[in-house]
Amino acid sequence: MKLWEKGYSLDKEAEAFTAGKDYLYDQKLVEYDCIASIGHAKMLGEMGYLTKKECKAICAGLKKIISLEKKGKFNITQSDEDCHTKIEAHLTKKLGQTGKKIHALRSRNDQVIAALNLYSKAKLNQILAEINSLQKAMKKADSKNFPMPGYTHMQRAMPSSTKMWFGSFIEMLKKDSKAIALAIEFNDENPLGSGAGYGFPFKVKNHVSAKQLGFKATHTNALAAQNFRAKKELSAVHALLEVMLTLNKFASDLMLFTTAEFGFFELPKELCTGSSIMPQKKNYDVLEIMRSNSGIVFANYSKIFAVSNNLPSGYNRDVQHTKAALMDSIETTLASVKMAQKIVKNLKANPENMKRALTPEVYAAEEVLKLVSKGETFRDAYRKTAKKFSK
Amino acid sequence: MKLWEKGYSLDKEAEAFTAGKDYLYDQKLVEYDCIASIGHAKMLGEMGYLTKKECKAICAGLKKIISLEKKGKFNITQSDEDCHTKIEAHLTKKLGQTGKKIHALRSRNDQVIAALNLYSKAKLNQILAEINSLQKAMKKADSKNFPMPGYTHMQRAMPSSTKMWFGSFIEMLKKDSKAIALAIEFNDENPLGSGAGYGFPFKVKNHVSAKQLGFKATHTNALAAQNFRAKKELSAVHALLEVMLTLNKFASDLMLFTTAEFGFFELPKELCTGSSIMPQKKNYDVLEIMRSNSGIVFANYSKIFAVSNNLPSGYNRDVQHTKAALMDSIETTLASVKMAQKIVKNLKANPENMKRALTPEVYAAEEVLKLVSKGETFRDAYRKTAKKFSK
Amino acid sequence: MKLWEKGYSLDKEAEAFTAGKDYLYDQKLVEYDCIASIGHAKMLGEMGYLTKKECKAICAGLKKIISLEKKGKFNITQSDEDCHTKIEAHLTKKLGQTGKKIHALRSRNDQVIAALNLYSKAKLNQILAEINSLQKAMKKADSKNFPMPGYTHMQRAMPSSTKMWFGSFIEMLKKDSKAIALAIEFNDENPLGSGAGYGFPFKVKNHVSAKQLGFKATHTNALAAQNFRAKKELSAVHALLEVMLTLNKFASDLMLFTTAEFGFFELPKELCTGSSIMPQKKNYDVLEIMRSNSGIVFANYSKIFAVSNNLPSGYNRDVQHTKAALMDSIETTLASVKMAQKIVKNLKANPENMKRALTPEVYAAEEVLKLVSKGETFRDAYRKTAKKFSK
Amino acid sequence: MKLWEKGYSLDKEAEAFTAGKDYLYDQKLVEYDCIASIGHAKMLGEMGYLTKKECKAICAGLKKIISLEKKGKFNITQSDEDCHTKIEAHLTKKLGQTGKKIHALRSRNDQVIAALNLYSKAKLNQILAEINSLQKAMKKADSKNFPMPGYTHMQRAMPSSTKMWFGSFIEMLKKDSKAIALAIEFNDENPLGSGAGYGFPFKVKNHVSAKQLGFKATHTNALAAQNFRAKKELSAVHALLEVMLTLNKFASDLMLFTTAEFGFFELPKELCTGSSIMPQKKNYDVLEIMRSNSGIVFANYSKIFAVSNNLPSGYNRDVQHTKAALMDSIETTLASVKMAQKIVKNLKANPENMKRALTPEVYAAEEVLKLVSKGETFRDAYRKTAKKFSK
Repeated sequence: MKLWEKGYSLDKEAEAFTAGKDYLYDQKLVEYDCIASIGHAKMLGEMGYLTKKECKAICAGLKKIISLEKKGKFNITQSDEDCHTKIEAHLTKKLGQTGKKIHALRSRNDQVIAALNLYSKAKLNQILAEINSLQKAMKKADSKNFPMPGYTHMQRAMPSSTKMWFGSFIEMLKKDSKAIALAIEFNDENPLGSGAGYGFPFKVKNHVSAKQLGFKATHTNALAAQNFRAKKELSAVHALLEVMLTLNKFASDLMLFTTAEFGFFELPKELCTGSSIMPQKKNYDVLEIMRSNSGIVFANYSKIFAVSNNLPSGYNRDVQHTKAALMDSIETTLASVKMAQKIVKNLKANPENMKRALTPEVYAAEEVLKLVSKGETFRDAYRKTAKKFSK
Repeated sequence: MKLWEKGYSLDKEAEAFTAGKDYLYDQKLVEYDCIASIGHAKMLGEMGYLTKKECKAICAGLKKIISLEKKGKFNITQSDEDCHTKIEAHLTKKLGQTGKKIHALRSRNDQVIAALNLYSKAKLNQILAEINSLQKAMKKADSKNFPMPGYTHMQRAMPSSTKMWFGSFIEMLKKDSKAIALAIEFNDENPLGSGAGYGFPFKVKNHVSAKQLGFKATHTNALAAQNFRAKKELSAVHALLEVMLTLNKFASDLMLFTTAEFGFFELPKELCTGSSIMPQKKNYDVLEIMRSNSGIVFANYSKIFAVSNNLPSGYNRDVQHTKAALMDSIETTLASVKMAQKIVKNLKANPENMKRALTPEVYAAEEVLKLVSKGETFRDAYRKTAKKFSK
Repeated sequence: MKLWEKGYSLDKEAEAFTAGKDYLYDQKLVEYDCIASIGHAKMLGEMGYLTKKECKAICAGLKKIISLEKKGKFNITQSDEDCHTKIEAHLTKKLGQTGKKIHALRSRNDQVIAALNLYSKAKLNQILAEINSLQKAMKKADSKNFPMPGYTHMQRAMPSSTKMWFGSFIEMLKKDSKAIALAIEFNDENPLGSGAGYGFPFKVKNHVSAKQLGFKATHTNALAAQNFRAKKELSAVHALLEVMLTLNKFASDLMLFTTAEFGFFELPKELCTGSSIMPQKKNYDVLEIMRSNSGIVFANYSKIFAVSNNLPSGYNRDVQHTKAALMDSIETTLASVKMAQKIVKNLKANPENMKRALTPEVYAAEEVLKLVSKGETFRDAYRKTAKKFSK
Repeated sequence: MKLWEKGYSLDKEAEAFTAGKDYLYDQKLVEYDCIASIGHAKMLGEMGYLTKKECKAICAGLKKIISLEKKGKFNITQSDEDCHTKIEAHLTKKLGQTGKKIHALRSRNDQVIAALNLYSKAKLNQILAEINSLQKAMKKADSKNFPMPGYTHMQRAMPSSTKMWFGSFIEMLKKDSKAIALAIEFNDENPLGSGAGYGFPFKVKNHVSAKQLGFKATHTNALAAQNFRAKKELSAVHALLEVMLTLNKFASDLMLFTTAEFGFFELPKELCTGSSIMPQKKNYDVLEIMRSNSGIVFANYSKIFAVSNNLPSGYNRDVQHTKAALMDSIETTLASVKMAQKIVKNLKANPENMKRALTPEVYAAEEVLKLVSKGETFRDAYRKTAKKFSK
């Protein structure tokens, strides 16, 4: 039964068309929606909309749903429409009249944002922790510090080292983490009480639910709470894309450095795949998938932009699509940051190949500086040295 | 067991990371992969790599898999890696030594393209047929031909009609169909024999498999057959995006025309949804989801571009991600074209509201032309009329 | 003076804000707009809206503007709003009352589409011709046919050759040309007579202008003629992106093949750039810019989608932005196809480096087939060979 | 003369192809590059690479270039390659040997990042200030606080007000400003001393240039300083896109609210444009261009992603294209935020039209709450009220 059940049935095809695969993503929100609903129930209690007993029963019912879901016994299907509908229906079935009281002073609009905020905070914090572990693994790996050439335009340029190379990723991840922290801040706000985007005719005690749910702030404008949803999701996906672009650079470098022609690094065969037809192949699919995952997150960014642009204020169903884009980006990035740790830990350097690539021209810029220190102007020293290396 | 099984196990996390959700999409390819494999087996028979008996056994085994799959009894899991691996393993289990012969003279690379080409041809042709039905439904709907204002810049501009409005979509869909026809042509080519992208040391009789599989042409360059994969997928998704942009315009118009303020059209309540909190609401979610589906297909276009750009020749695992983008675009467009038919058939016009909106200024351009026919220059007639309508 | 001049001035900031840089692109449309206006004038003559003398005067005036523009003496500025305004104003200044008659039976909306169609047809045909020259240059270059390894996953896979490599691009360009041909077809239609998107109260003789302008077809629905504009531009940019993706693959391969580590090809220093600090550098910037130009065209595709999605029927000013996206894509692709010819003609192969890279494992798949021909099943032969090459 | 001049000429077509239109954007960097070079010169002085006199001469020469550029007398052309080349050449022409010393201990790579950081900081801070002015203008405008309906799914939903509506943008802009502040922080770092991305064989005193240039931090890893460039540009463009999405919502709302059918707001005719053919038209092009500018900034985001993804570490020429994307986004957003202020200040509300749209069903949710306060469960109260409003 739909939340908006009015005595007639929604056309089955329209139901399938509008729900799409959204219900699969809602499965992952069940826990967060129950937590948010507990916060809401306590506020209803505080405001006198629920008796203490009713509030307790609802909270217990919601906790029960969380534990059912963890055991795989609370499955959202396409005809359930979404997790919110199923949860209210379940409560009403179990608690009777009491269950029918939970939706007072809220709308599905502020409800879904509350669940998404909790989900996003949890997952983005987990990603921050994994980034931290990755930085540590890189720090450990760079301690050997083998000399290697640095490249520009994919041509040998100047002397570099594995320490400088690993260090560049550590540094970029540090900055990427700031973008994630901002995305967390945008989610650290209680949307409850904003209702359908236009609040309620009287003041809702949303500081109660804010405290219950651990939100640092409460929304100050109901319409902004609604309209900011896709925008905050875009911010989160942007921050994740920054992480993935750092890993894309890492994987792109390694795809080059593990070719037979470069041979700077290798991975154990257990982390590589083979070919169905060429028995000699040792393919670095883990690196290719990591490289391509930036494209996945970028496509999600495009999706959120595309479905939310050029729409007037207030909830529009189009925005349903942003949920999958956000969740898929989070899962993709989390998996990539974890896999990057495994790669770093298993990466074997071939310092002799690096050394062989440190051919004399890599030191040409140093020669220029030596001439400068002997009194030549930089540009004259440059041209003199250029002659020596011209073929 | 992997196709490239060599006596050690792929790290479980690397397996999960590289396979991702691809196996879910491979489920939908099982049928097409079996059909393609039958074509390949017949070619192996023709070339003497399989005896008549072996060929017959393999073809029967593959047909059996198709029927198992249709009954939901042939499920690809993440550790199966993909449908191709599972199918060969199944054949070998059932047929022993004979099963181990099916992969001669092919690679997973040409195999997957063969399956995708068959899948794409079938689905794109189905979409063409549904577009045709939609055009017919619109043709029928426009027969009432109510006058309505035409808008530019979202302001009333000149007289239009429901016939002109429906007609614009019929005409655009006609052109969109040409883009789809080109995408079908790109898939109407036999990739078998291109192997891993570098062919085989001797001539493979791919005209045999081409004929078996109903492909109009065979590839002429093995590397192009491989490198063209993402490009042809991009062409298909572009064609689908053109269809979705036509439907996006249709849905955007209707979202405006069904507001309380315009009131030109309405849909029966069975095709509308309600609000969890506002009992009066009759929301046009079917139109909003249709409108937003152009964004979904655009995001898929972005994905195919993003993961395939800046990569060197030859198969790269990155391209695995394009499969989901292609299939999702096809499913989204197919569902949208079907739903559009239902909407057109159920759309109720409110001609009196349209008439009320045909206010005098809508005829200002006609007045100009009347003055021109009386001998005024166009620009002077324009300025004279402008004065009349200036507020 | 604006076409819609009504006795008051448009706010200067609003003028600058709305015109943006569009006037710079309009400069390139002057010629095409004059040609289209000549076609329109002849239709007005045929319909009796212009006397023979007036028609002649207007056509002469328009031809004069074309020649002025070619000499750099007809410059569109931001306050001109666009080329259409400036051209009518110029005619009126030169021809007096006669000039004020040119805009009868048309709107700026069908006028700009007519000019863009003529521009697009001309430029896309030029690109087709340059692609043809590039294919010929590649055909010539592949005649030496040096053996080289083929790569998958950026690892040595199977034997390939420069002939196969060049051939893959020739083949892909052949298919890309089909996408361009479809884009040309979409532009080969006379939009004149569709006016502001709602036609005129009586039949306009647009077959006259169609014939004058060499359009194969005339529009059949005025609103479709208008709404299809951004869609046809998207089709053109998609086709151009397909070309650029082929060149992106070509450039990506060459960036790899020109590294010190691969060393398969090189370009003469006159086609390379240097570093401001490292005197030894020989950078392949021409390849990098070619590689990156696919990104430029993709961004233009994104732009056309983004500004035209989620908009109702009829002209919306948003679409002004698609002009720059279309023109920039055409110029970028044209320059890239031309530069690719120069690169192909100047590319020097190093066959000995290619040969050195043809290490024994490149022939592993061939060994498998040899065992198969001796009676082993493919999969057993594969596993036997795998052992030999395992490290 | 190029910085890397070595006694032969770069092919003219290769020069034009690689420089493209980049030189036009470099014109806007001249001032910032000179400022950065002054900081670098002072560091060279401190390190003994320049005498006090030389340092003074160079700084004076650079200041002279700034003033020439402001007078339009220092124009970068395509064959100049970029502003950096032209500036060094100019110094050398004016100062002889001294000018040839400026490029010691830097590369064009760290030089261009220094100029871009200074440019970005200045412009992003300017945008922050304009956002602040816009918020104030909105605050002032909302003081009248007319009641109006709030919409969801583009249907009348619940009571809202002009105060709530304006307030939603004020609130979102507050959050958008945080994203811009982070982008500023990413640019508030001295890249000088990172050279070509691999530093120098000895410690460069970059704290000196940092202090001179007002950078809060100095880079800690030379390669990261280089690789982070496109990433920080992406962050800036993302922040600008957030601003534009807020303005897109504002413009989308107003396009709806200024239709004849809604009639909630209007703008004076001086801010509107007319039609070339329909004399009655009053078009809100300023709103349409504002609405579409989010698409422009999104396309720039796509461009930066597209050209920088899948590239190995170290400078690659592809990244040249990000400069135009960044600058165009900054200019577009700045112009839009300014125009938004003018719109807000000139917007005329029609409170009677708003009132007329506050039809009884807008208060349905309130009725439900009244029943709840009388003891009904929320869901039963909802269903009872639904019956009343069902048609």
